Amino acid sequence: MSALTTDLYQLTMAQGYWQHGRHLDRASFYMSMRRTPFGGGFAIAAGLEQIVSFLDGLRFEPEDIDYLRSLSGGDGGPLFAPEFLDALPALDLSVSLAAVPEGTAVFAREPLLRVEAPLLVGQLIETPILNIINFQTLVATKAARLCHIAAPGQPVLEFGLRRAQGFDGALSACRAAYVGGCTATSNVQAGQRFGIPVRGTHAHSWVQAFDSEPEAFGAFAETMPNNCVLLVDTYDVDRGIENAIAVGRELERRGQRLLGIRLDSGDLLQQSRGARRRLNEAGLEDVAIVVSDNLDEKRIMELRRAGAAIDIWGVGTSLVTAAGGGALGGVYKLSAIRRAGEERWRPVFKLGAGVGKASLPGRLQVRRYRSAGGALERDVIYTRDAAAAPGAEPGTEGGRDLLAPVLDHGRLLSPLPTLEACREVAGREVTALPVGLLDLDCHEPAPVKVAPGLLELCDELAAEHQVLAAGRS
Amino acid sequence: MSALTTDLYQLTMAQGYWQHGRHLDRASFYMSMRRTPFGGGFAIAAGLEQIVSFLDGLRFEPEDIDYLRSLSGGDGGPLFAPEFLDALPALDLSVSLAAVPEGTAVFAREPLLRVEAPLLVGQLIETPILNIINFQTLVATKAARLCHIAAPGQPVLEFGLRRAQGFDGALSACRAAYVGGCTATSNVQAGQRFGIPVRGTHAHSWVQAFDSEPEAFGAFAETMPNNCVLLVDTYDVDRGIENAIAVGRELERRGQRLLGIRLDSGDLLQQSRGARRRLNEAGLEDVAIVVSDNLDEKRIMELRRAGAAIDIWGVGTSLVTAAGGGALGGVYKLSAIRRAGEERWRPVFKLGAGVGKASLPGRLQVRRYRSAGGALERDVIYTRDAAAAPGAEPGTEGGRDLLAPVLDHGRLLSPLPTLEACREVAGREVTALPVGLLDLDCHEPAPVKVAPGLLELCDELAAEHQVLAAGRS
Repeated sequence: MSALTTDLYQLTMAQGYWQHGRHLDRASFYMSMRRTPFGGGFAIAAGLEQIVSFLDGLRFEPEDIDYLRSLSGGDGGPLFAPEFLDALPALDLSVSLAAVPEGTAVFAREPLLRVEAPLLVGQLIETPILNIINFQTLVATKAARLCHIAAPGQPVLEFGLRRAQGFDGALSACRAAYVGGCTATSNVQAGQRFGIPVRGTHAHSWVQAFDSEPEAFGAFAETMPNNCVLLVDTYDVDRGIENAIAVGRELERRGQRLLGIRLDSGDLLQQSRGARRRLNEAGLEDVAIVVSDNLDEKRIMELRRAGAAIDIWGVGTSLVTAAGGGALGGVYKLSAIRRAGEERWRPVFKLGAGVGKASLPGRLQVRRYRSAGGALERDVIYTRDAAAAPGAEPGTEGGRDLLAPVLDHGRLLSPLPTLEACREVAGREVTALPVGLLDLDCHEPAPVKVAPGLLELCDELAAEHQVLAAGRS
Repeated sequence: MSALTTDLYQLTMAQGYWQHGRHLDRASFYMSMRRTPFGGGFAIAAGLEQIVSFLDGLRFEPEDIDYLRSLSGGDGGPLFAPEFLDALPALDLSVSLAAVPEGTAVFAREPLLRVEAPLLVGQLIETPILNIINFQTLVATKAARLCHIAAPGQPVLEFGLRRAQGFDGALSACRAAYVGGCTATSNVQAGQRFGIPVRGTHAHSWVQAFDSEPEAFGAFAETMPNNCVLLVDTYDVDRGIENAIAVGRELERRGQRLLGIRLDSGDLLQQSRGARRRLNEAGLEDVAIVVSDNLDEKRIMELRRAGAAIDIWGVGTSLVTAAGGGALGGVYKLSAIRRAGEERWRPVFKLGAGVGKASLPGRLQVRRYRSAGGALERDVIYTRDAAAAPGAEPGTEGGRDLLAPVLDHGRLLSPLPTLEACREVAGREVTALPVGLLDLDCHEPAPVKVAPGLLELCDELAAEHQVLAAGRS
């Protein structure tokens, strides 16, 4: 964690704001996503805890300033003004933050997080905030999709450390996958750090290291009698299953138990059905069948529909790299500004030339409406800065605001929920979604409306845009 | 960095090896990829420096052992034996390592790295090695593809921090992107840490924060007269270009220079051509046109072929998330083992049920053959453990071995090349590739052969597999 974990342009703009006496203007930024990932109808918000932790540790160290001092511009002269770099470490970097609680189901376009801070600071933290929320939300969403497709009671395990983007990418992927519903991880460090349950038994190399598969299986059962899941496809799956059954019977004779067998290649449908039948014939009905091998939510759905006899799903690459989603594409936009010494907030927005590239103006909030039974009905994005009086904007009666205050000028307002609590929220949220939004490829519109007052404000500002581009003077 | 940055099964196997007196067996593992990523014909190897650094710091701390002691198995009893955990911190974790130098062009199936270590240690480091090489090689390859498609002299800048997998994922992506050929990054921390050039100017929010675009542009030119690239699409691109031209002229009058304008949305082809024409008419021929907006190598190729007037490419998401590749899918396989007290290495392999899931046996090496002019001709994978005498295996005369010794029992044999040197290697390697392998969608076979002796060894071992599965006894 470093104050330099940001894009250079945040710092060049920071100097500009400072030199023009604008750095203490109060600014409201919000983060939202342009579309829900993986072609699905929802996302699960995650990453708030890391953001709070990052903001808490945010400061410029002397070596950071030294580095910035060493940078030069196009003419070889210093990029940053010395007086700006001298002032930077003394600036108050605390922010006020409101956010959707982790685990909440969210939709495209609506704010997931709102920052109110001095203009310079709100700008500086854009990049780390996007980095954290984009990836956490993406993986939590992927996990929620996987866990929804696996039947209730069929754990999805996260096995992706070897394919993740760096050690830290792997760690944060584990955390997000757990929030989204995964039961455990193979990543021991994630277990140590976050208290996530860890799982794992042996690899092909264990079998190769012994003179034969029966010898290898026997040796493993001896060393891990209470954690014995045997990988049966090193040489020949049918033989592997027989060899595992022999070990399972031997463990039973000793009053112990074979927990499962694992299939990692080939036709998982036929293999799992054959294995189940033979395990049952051998009286090993409670031995679980675990599969891995490039699984994702679509393959899990196909296997389940075709009647595969699979109890536990190990998912690696597609989960930690968010296959099919790539990146959340979250954006962070300035939406209102209040000049130092002024009382009025000025709503701002950008139009942009591409679809979905326009932003919303004002200090934004989302109101969520639920049925009496708790089912999610609709969200309304609104702003206190529209013409209608605060709190009285049409369409926002009843319901409950989604963005809850988290930090007030850097002070944490109440302890953040535990990882377990966030995971429970996510589980409830998925259950409360309209069923059409749960389709893996969702064609239903998001249940999100923009309040009338906010729409009017957009129209007003759009009309002003030509003027802004041309200059008012 | 932690010894627990590994999959749990590496530790359960470690206990098994230790309890069965096998942990000091000498083992040879290799890492290779099943296919080259992005549908392309080559990959650029990267990540060796991080692996050396990880291995150098590898040790079990008391809190790691405490954590492992806290884990329980299926029966609620301890997962790990106390005597194993007591022994673990005292084990010698040093390894011998040979690897392809960073920046080298590599192909599917051939070993990129070979570890020789005690069985327990070689196993333990599988996961971190895969984590590092998979991601570094993936991003270096993506960068090489991007830089090859952009014309020579057209820099590709890495802008992906906000979409990367965590801060560390972003940092390591920057490093790999630089090895692969990118010119600079927006990530200030990567600049500080690796000495990579950093670039950046301003965002839309800068323009929004002022009363008008001309005011915002003027203010930016004032604050960054030697680093002025103006983003022209906040409100209206045509007006934005005019406003930028006015600033460019003003800078010229002051003896300074507008470095460029940036386009971030809409029709980049038409916009860039229009902008070039108007800049030239205004006598601003040397003002560069920078573009961003979800670029990847295919979009860059289309824009160039259509005659876009673009000088600098800013690439974010597709680079750091390796869009279209997802994960390298590198694997790490045990290929030979020498029991403690024995002299002979026993080659081993696994068959697996899926295509490409079989591994190669023996202590492996790759010999690369080049033309007199340096063009890459072919690679031959061979092993000293085949029937033919070491060094005399048919097909391996001449050429040069790709896997170079890096660590000998933990000792670094010679200083690793600098990042700049790795980047130069990558640049040369791409130039030396057969031209067909440079197609973005490559249909040419990889120029890789398996030596006859190694093929024979595979056949011999495949015949033994039924025996191994059944047990020799």
